[in-house]
Amino acid sequence: MGDLTEMLRAGLPPEAVVTDPDVTASYAHDMASFCAAGAPAVVVLPRTVEQVQHVMRTATALRVPVVPQGARTGLSGAANATDGCIVLSLVKMDRILEIDAVERIAVVEPGVVNADLSRAVADQGLYYPPDPSSWEQCTIGGNIGTASGGLCCVKYGVTAEYVLGLDVVLADGRLLRTGRRTAKGVAGYDLTRLFVGSEGSLGVVVRAVLALRPAPPQQLALAAEFPSVAAACEAVRQIMAGGHAPSLLELMDRTCVRAVNALGNMGLPESTEALLLAAFDTPDPAPDLAAVAEVCTRAGATEVVPAEDAAESELLLQARRMALPALERLRPATMIDDVCVPRSALADMLQGTAAIAREHDLTIGVCAHAGDGNTHPVVCFDPADPEEARRARASFDRIMALGLELGGTITGEHGVGLLKKQWLAEEAGPLAMELQRGIKAVFDPLGLLNPGKVLDVAAPHPIGFPTPT
Amino acid sequence: MGDLTEMLRAGLPPEAVVTDPDVTASYAHDMASFCAAGAPAVVVLPRTVEQVQHVMRTATALRVPVVPQGARTGLSGAANATDGCIVLSLVKMDRILEIDAVERIAVVEPGVVNADLSRAVADQGLYYPPDPSSWEQCTIGGNIGTASGGLCCVKYGVTAEYVLGLDVVLADGRLLRTGRRTAKGVAGYDLTRLFVGSEGSLGVVVRAVLALRPAPPQQLALAAEFPSVAAACEAVRQIMAGGHAPSLLELMDRTCVRAVNALGNMGLPESTEALLLAAFDTPDPAPDLAAVAEVCTRAGATEVVPAEDAAESELLLQARRMALPALERLRPATMIDDVCVPRSALADMLQGTAAIAREHDLTIGVCAHAGDGNTHPVVCFDPADPEEARRARASFDRIMALGLELGGTITGEHGVGLLKKQWLAEEAGPLAMELQRGIKAVFDPLGLLNPGKVLDVAAPHPIGFPTPT
Repeated sequence: MGDLTEMLRAGLPPEAVVTDPDVTASYAHDMASFCAAGAPAVVVLPRTVEQVQHVMRTATALRVPVVPQGARTGLSGAANATDGCIVLSLVKMDRILEIDAVERIAVVEPGVVNADLSRAVADQGLYYPPDPSSWEQCTIGGNIGTASGGLCCVKYGVTAEYVLGLDVVLADGRLLRTGRRTAKGVAGYDLTRLFVGSEGSLGVVVRAVLALRPAPPQQLALAAEFPSVAAACEAVRQIMAGGHAPSLLELMDRTCVRAVNALGNMGLPESTEALLLAAFDTPDPAPDLAAVAEVCTRAGATEVVPAEDAAESELLLQARRMALPALERLRPATMIDDVCVPRSALADMLQGTAAIAREHDLTIGVCAHAGDGNTHPVVCFDPADPEEARRARASFDRIMALGLELGGTITGEHGVGLLKKQWLAEEAGPLAMELQRGIKAVFDPLGLLNPGKVLDVAAPHPIGFPTPT
Repeated sequence: MGDLTEMLRAGLPPEAVVTDPDVTASYAHDMASFCAAGAPAVVVLPRTVEQVQHVMRTATALRVPVVPQGARTGLSGAANATDGCIVLSLVKMDRILEIDAVERIAVVEPGVVNADLSRAVADQGLYYPPDPSSWEQCTIGGNIGTASGGLCCVKYGVTAEYVLGLDVVLADGRLLRTGRRTAKGVAGYDLTRLFVGSEGSLGVVVRAVLALRPAPPQQLALAAEFPSVAAACEAVRQIMAGGHAPSLLELMDRTCVRAVNALGNMGLPESTEALLLAAFDTPDPAPDLAAVAEVCTRAGATEVVPAEDAAESELLLQARRMALPALERLRPATMIDDVCVPRSALADMLQGTAAIAREHDLTIGVCAHAGDGNTHPVVCFDPADPEEARRARASFDRIMALGLELGGTITGEHGVGLLKKQWLAEEAGPLAMELQRGIKAVFDPLGLLNPGKVLDVAAPHPIGFPTPT
C-alpha cells in the first residue's frame, strides 16, 4: 500500500492521489442498492492520458485491481469499489476537445458531463441525443461504460449508436485507438462497440469521438389519461405499428403520477391509471399529434391534452423527469429495474409487475420508455427493515425473470454491474458467457479491470504472469 | 477428401453437397480483382441450422477450412475459396421468417436477397434502409458479413445499425444466440456487433433479427452541375454544416457521368466536372431542396435542376446506380476503392485521386456517397496487360494511402477481405491487430473460418488441439 501510493505519486501530481479514508470512502459506490462496496486503497484523479497510463502500468506491476469511475450515478453497482482497489476517477478529464459541424462529431474526454456536452453542441445547432435521467451529473465516460439511454431513444437510440471511435488505455497501460472520425467505416472487428457497455472491464476510455445530429425543432407533446395500464399499452402498440416516429413516448403508472404530484405540485390527473406522454420534433408535428390523439381515444383514453406550446411540452417532460426522485421519496430506499420487453408484451410486463408488488406487499411505481418497451419498475423499501429489504430484492429478481419470460432483456440501458450479474448469465446462456470471458481475457489477462463486474472470470490473477513493460 | 464428402453427406441431403469441379469452380471467388482464389474441395448448400452445424462439426473434426458465402457480390475477396476448403454457401437459407410492424423487426435467414426483404417490408409500410448497389443480388448474410452500406447511409447509416440479434454457428458447430428482439438492450459485451463486418471469420450467421423503420415518403431529388470537383465538395460541406438531413447526397465525376450516358442514354450533362445529387424524404422536402439549391448555386453550380416528381427523382437515382456497371464498360476490368474521409477532406481526396490517375496513366472514374465522405474511385484497366495491371494495383493502393493521410479509413462499406488486409494493419496499428487476433482465437481457435481473410492469424492450426464434440 505504501508502495502503491508511492509508485502512483511518481507519475501523478500530488492532488491527484487521494488516500484520506474519509475521502476515499466517498468514492466507494454508485447509486445502486444491494451491491457490495469495498474500501479503496487509493483514489486517483488523473487529468491526462499519460497519467491514466501511469495508473494502469502501476496497477499491472503491483497486481492491484482498478475500478474506473465517472459520476457514480450508475444504478447497477458497476462503479463500486472493491477492497484495496485503485479507484480511477475520470471526472477531472472533462474537456470538450472539438465540436465540428461539418463532420457532425464531438471529441471529448470521458469526464465531460452529458448536459454540458448537450448544451455546447446545441449552441452550434447540433444535437447529442442520449439523455439519461441523470444527465446533469453523469459523464460521457460513464454513459459509454453502461451504454446509457434516456427519453430520446424511441427515435434516436442509445449511446452506443453515437460512439464512432475511442482512445482506450488498456489494463497494461498501452494506448489503443479504435474506430474513426468519419461518417462510415468498417475496417476490421468492431472494437469500439465492444468497449461500449463493457463497464470499464475491458479498458479505460480516455477520449471519445461522438456522432452528432442536426438539432431538431423543439418537440411538441401531448398527455393522454387511461383507465387502465392495458389500454395505455394498446395505444403504444398502435402508435408504433402505425408508422409514427415519436421523439418521446413515455408511460407513468398511477403510483408514479401521484408521487410526482406530491413532490412537484405538477397537477397531473391523480385518478388516471396510466398517463402516456407522446411528443414529435418534426417541423410540423400537428398531423402526427392529431393521429396519436385519435389512437389514444380509440384505445380508451379518458382525456387527451395536447400541450399548447413548447414550454408546456417542456413542463410535461419535467414531470416525467421527476418520476425517479418522486418515487425515491416514498420510502427510504429504492431499487430500479430496467427490463426491456417487446412492445407487444408491455401490458403483460406492467400487469405482472403490479402483481409482483401485491404478492410482495411493496410499493413498486413504474415509469417506462413505453415506445421502446423499456420499463423502470422502482421498488420502494426500507433497508432498515430486513424483512422488507428481503422482499424488495426478491421482487426485483422476479421482475427480471418476468422480463425474460416475455422475451425481453434484463437491462435496456442501465447495464449489468454487480446487481444483475447472475441474471446476465441467465439471459445470455453458458456459451455466450464463455465467449465473453474469452474476450475479457484477451483485453485484461490479469483480471485487474473492474473485477467481478458484468461477469466473473475464472482465474483473475494468474500467478507468475509476466509484467508488461 | 473422400472422408470429407462422406462425412458431409451423412448430415446433408445429396443435392446439398457438390463436388463436380466445374460447378465448385464457379463458387471460387467474389467480384474483387487482384485476389487469389483457390479450388474448393466441396461446396455445401445447407437449408437448415442443423445442417450448418453438421458442416462445421465436420470441418472441425477434419481440420478443413470453411469459407462462408452469400451471393459473392463482395468487392474485397472475402468470399474467395482457399484450396481444399469447404465453401459454405448460405443462399438456400432464404426465408423471411417474420416481419413485425409493432416491434419493427424482421427475422430472416442469411440467404434472403436484400431487395426481396426491402420489398417485403415495404408491403407492410416498413423500411429496411441498407441498399448496396448490388441489392438485387446480394444477401443479408453477406451484408452483415461486410457491414454493407449504400446510398441511404447519409441519413440512415449502414447495415450494422440494423442488426439487433444473431444466431451464429461457431467454428465447432455450437449454436450461439446474441443480442435481442427488443428495441433496446445492453446486457453484456456486444457480441452481435462483433460478428457484423467480421466477414465470416468468427462464425456463420444463420439467422438475423433486423431493425426496421416506418417507410418514409418517397424522396424528391435535385441535380446540380459544377464546374469543378472542389466546388461540388464545398457545396457538400455547406449542406452538411447547414443542418440538412438529406436522404441521399451523391457525387459523380465527369468520367462517371460520361460513362453513364454512354451506357444508358441518360442525358446527363457531359460538360459538367461534377454532378451532385441530393434528395429528401421528409413530408415536405421543398424547403430543404430550395435551401440546398441555393447552397449549390452559391458554391458555384452552373445549373441546378430539381426533379419534377418522385418518378423523375427515381430516374436520377437510376443514373447513379448505373455508375458502376457503366465504368465497368470502359476497360476489361475494374477495381473499386472504398475510402471514406472526413467530409472536409473530400475535395482533397477527389483531386488527389485525379492526380493518381494521371500519374499512373489510368482511367479512374469516381462516384461517391459524398454526404458521408465515402468515395468509390473505380480503377479501370486491362488485366491482360501486365504493365497496366501493375499500375492499376499501384494506383489502388495509393488511393488508400491518400485516404489514411487525410484522416480517413480504407473501407467505408466494402470490408477488408483479402484485398485490403495489409492496409487494415496499416490503419488499425499493431495493438489493435493484436487484440483482433486475440478475439479471432477466442471464437475460432483452430483458425478454420475463412482463413486469411480480414487478418492473418499467427498459428491457425495448432497441432493436437482437442476436437470439440
